[in-house]
Amino acid sequence: MNIVVAQSGGPTCAINASLVGVFREAMKVQTIDAVFGSINGIEGVINDRLIDLKTMIRTDCDMDLLRQTPSTVLGSCRYKLPDSKEDDSAYQKIIQCFVRRQIGAFFYIGGNDSMDTVMKLSAYVKEQGLDVKIIGIPKTIDNDLCVTDHTPGFGSAAKYVATTMQEIIRDSSVYSVPSVTIVEIMGRHAGWLAASSAVLHANEQAAPHLIYVPERPMTLERFFEDLRCQMAKHKAVVVAVSEGVEVPESQSQQYQSGVVDSFGHKYLSGIGKYLEQAVREEFGCKVRSIELNVMQRCSSHISSETDIHEAEEIGAAGVRCALAGGTGQVMVFRRIRDVPYTVVIEPADAKRIANREKFLPKSYINEAGNNITDEALSYFLPLIRGERNIIMKNGLPQHFLIREDILR
Amino acid sequence: MNIVVAQSGGPTCAINASLVGVFREAMKVQTIDAVFGSINGIEGVINDRLIDLKTMIRTDCDMDLLRQTPSTVLGSCRYKLPDSKEDDSAYQKIIQCFVRRQIGAFFYIGGNDSMDTVMKLSAYVKEQGLDVKIIGIPKTIDNDLCVTDHTPGFGSAAKYVATTMQEIIRDSSVYSVPSVTIVEIMGRHAGWLAASSAVLHANEQAAPHLIYVPERPMTLERFFEDLRCQMAKHKAVVVAVSEGVEVPESQSQQYQSGVVDSFGHKYLSGIGKYLEQAVREEFGCKVRSIELNVMQRCSSHISSETDIHEAEEIGAAGVRCALAGGTGQVMVFRRIRDVPYTVVIEPADAKRIANREKFLPKSYINEAGNNITDEALSYFLPLIRGERNIIMKNGLPQHFLIREDILR
Repeated sequence: MNIVVAQSGGPTCAINASLVGVFREAMKVQTIDAVFGSINGIEGVINDRLIDLKTMIRTDCDMDLLRQTPSTVLGSCRYKLPDSKEDDSAYQKIIQCFVRRQIGAFFYIGGNDSMDTVMKLSAYVKEQGLDVKIIGIPKTIDNDLCVTDHTPGFGSAAKYVATTMQEIIRDSSVYSVPSVTIVEIMGRHAGWLAASSAVLHANEQAAPHLIYVPERPMTLERFFEDLRCQMAKHKAVVVAVSEGVEVPESQSQQYQSGVVDSFGHKYLSGIGKYLEQAVREEFGCKVRSIELNVMQRCSSHISSETDIHEAEEIGAAGVRCALAGGTGQVMVFRRIRDVPYTVVIEPADAKRIANREKFLPKSYINEAGNNITDEALSYFLPLIRGERNIIMKNGLPQHFLIREDILR
Repeated sequence: MNIVVAQSGGPTCAINASLVGVFREAMKVQTIDAVFGSINGIEGVINDRLIDLKTMIRTDCDMDLLRQTPSTVLGSCRYKLPDSKEDDSAYQKIIQCFVRRQIGAFFYIGGNDSMDTVMKLSAYVKEQGLDVKIIGIPKTIDNDLCVTDHTPGFGSAAKYVATTMQEIIRDSSVYSVPSVTIVEIMGRHAGWLAASSAVLHANEQAAPHLIYVPERPMTLERFFEDLRCQMAKHKAVVVAVSEGVEVPESQSQQYQSGVVDSFGHKYLSGIGKYLEQAVREEFGCKVRSIELNVMQRCSSHISSETDIHEAEEIGAAGVRCALAGGTGQVMVFRRIRDVPYTVVIEPADAKRIANREKFLPKSYINEAGNNITDEALSYFLPLIRGERNIIMKNGLPQHFLIREDILR
């Protein structure tokens, strides 16, 4: 039989490591002939755009380069399968591709939306009496998938965020005037990544002095009060805030209508920029906001070795699960203990994961709702440990490069 | 005798390495007793806020941590000495401090403005018949100092910019829709840092497809034309632009008055955000702008070993220059050859450097003014080579931490 693997959703540092895991494990199995890669997620299966991964990944060095190349080497998509009862045209195309290519298993590396595809497709395939195993391999820097202890991609993003946050803290403290620095971190509904910046507290750092996550309500008034308190103690106050944090004041007419760009459009400023302006108005002090932007999800030069290793292993475990007859399953991590850090990989029903979100436990957020507890540190710290020995070329990390025309 | 060292201007990854260089070299010299660090640049000398560096830097490990700690461990300032003919009150305070503390040499690590201080102070000290050697140690990520081949801090900033640019290129290429990504890079008058992102061309990357620097005029119309041309060839076009680039169209009344924040203030958007809006309006395609912000100057986790090593050596050379009787001198690099990369360190008169700026040579910019030539690569590449073996703690680079109250 042949198998096909696809990557979906937003880029991470670990998603190509999971691809390596699937490929490497499949190469060990005599009953697997071709390993296809689908271009642009499930869209590649629908449009029959598959490439033979054995011609793409030829050497151990190729695999090493893939492990240190961020983003999705096979391209990605944001496509979500419709309900097959309403429209099964895409499903039929998928089935046609599976039959034509003699596919015995499909591995989908992605987040909540991709796990919805795993759930729907595995049910449809069964209904059609087709024996194709459908397996989900989790990935997202948001760490918001249910059931699994954490998601591949999160550890590297957290390591980047904390490393960069520490450097911003040093940068912010050089001048003699009081200042406020606000760092906006990805996370629309769940504050995992912003919260992970608290790992600096384990390294004798008081900063970030304030951390706000979407799980707890926040008001501008409370924020000002928190700031006043921190400014009395620290000359340079550093604040971490999830992009998803909302303050009721920002919903006011003034804010909604006031921000206009040069073309007359409403300017979509994030919460960081909003708080920056608010602090400037209220305190009149030096204030700066910084967006960590896409670097949070693609900075593989500072990826977590734990994360990259686990991402590969969970991909490999997906292959073994399919061979053992599993389908409609998502591979998850179950943490056995923090010290020494131990996890096992096991399958979970995709229904328990698809379209759901996991939020920060209450015990990870302090009572005041403006920082993260020490209890959370034992959860976060093992995930960011370890550095990869990056292959460099001309002083730069070497990436696995795929011909541009393949992804066009 | 005693000596004093101070750090000034914007943070870099290499400025603490230069401090180590001065300290390490001074410790070897029997005639030097105390090595003082001045808090917040020359302001610390004016206000007699000096700390004994021997109590601060106690071990080899402390020195190693300083080499990997970004920003100025002794704080910084933006203070510029006035003309002593008009007002010499600050000069008198400096002299008093020098006499009281038995200072025989003052080392100022900084950029153009700090070299102005070196020039003025050395002249004043001579006039007063005082034998205190005043030596400048260059640093700036902008690489815009005259005479010297390059400046400490630039190589690490360039390595960060190119490394991050490469990751952004990977990130931008995952979806099947055409897109434009604009990366705004520091450099108000000189385009060195934006230009350095061209090193990716040495690693078989077409991107950045367009690079704009302040040295060459640019218009929105020409930018659109350049973009059209690149979009015909590449699905995901990536553009590097210096923050100092101006387009005449952005000076229009519409732009100046149209951008208003939630408090009714003019919103100071940078060139990246401006071009993003312009591209959205003109092409209607997916477009994103990214500011690399302060991370450009403080990302010591990916610092260039060449840069950090040279920064330390140029600090040490400053001490030797003072002992040999030099004053009013700035230490500079003279490049002997590109391959194998060889530089010598020598003194240059501060007058040749203070308050001047060095721009990109014409031969480094292509004829169309929208990219960097291959000739420039032999200049840039040696500066970003080599990685430091970073000391980690809990999965994070360990920084040299100075007590917060010392810098208050």
